[in-house]
Amino acid sequence: MDETSRTRDAVRAYVESAEQRDWQRLSDLLTENMVYELPQSRERIPGRSAFMQFNKEYPGDWHLQVRRIVADGRHAAAWIDACVGNEHQDACMWFEFSDDGLITRVVDYWPESYDPPSGREHLVERW
Amino acid sequence: MDETSRTRDAVRAYVESAEQRDWQRLSDLLTENMVYELPQSRERIPGRSAFMQFNKEYPGDWHLQVRRIVADGRHAAAWIDACVGNEHQDACMWFEFSDDGLITRVVDYWPESYDPPSGREHLVERW
Repeated sequence: MDETSRTRDAVRAYVESAEQRDWQRLSDLLTENMVYELPQSRERIPGRSAFMQFNKEYPGDWHLQVRRIVADGRHAAAWIDACVGNEHQDACMWFEFSDDGLITRVVDYWPESYDPPSGREHLVERW
Repeated sequence: MDETSRTRDAVRAYVESAEQRDWQRLSDLLTENMVYELPQSRERIPGRSAFMQFNKEYPGDWHLQVRRIVADGRHAAAWIDACVGNEHQDACMWFEFSDDGLITRVVDYWPESYDPPSGREHLVERW
């Protein structure tokens, strides 16, 4: 299997194992000193152990579905449809991999809805 | 050149030509019936002509820099550092390509900063 295929499979396994609360499978995808970052809140969780605890403790009955995975060598991005109950939110996740195909860094963005600014109504459709 | 390399180059050219206000170069990367979407505001701009006008009319002295491009066949994602003056904002952009290597769909996310929720201070560092 080439590096890009290995990366793509690992990102899919990352989302699936989180969705299934299969903590051992999720943990096995990560290097021990991996880092998880949330740039919007300037938060960083250093290390697999703390990251696993973060996931286990995360409140709410959350669910994740892959919209798209884009893999490219040791880098990947995942476009995710996340929901808690009827509330949906998209997420954009960026991944970096080690030599041996483990995840060393995850950077998550959780963009919120906003009202469109005025001045471009002549160009846009809404849905 | 393989499909993934062609896709990667086109995404880089997309960001560069927008940054340089090289409207002809940007337009040449797009199919005529391309679609631009902003899911956070549920806005859709249909067609190259309207999308070019949107870019030309976009207010402010904005600048774009590539943090990362991930290309995978006819799909790609770009992680962008955008700024207007001293105000920085990251963006996540998702691309789809036609058979002949033109951009058919761009989906942009513009995540805003937020304060971290309480309850996870024991796991996180801030920056």
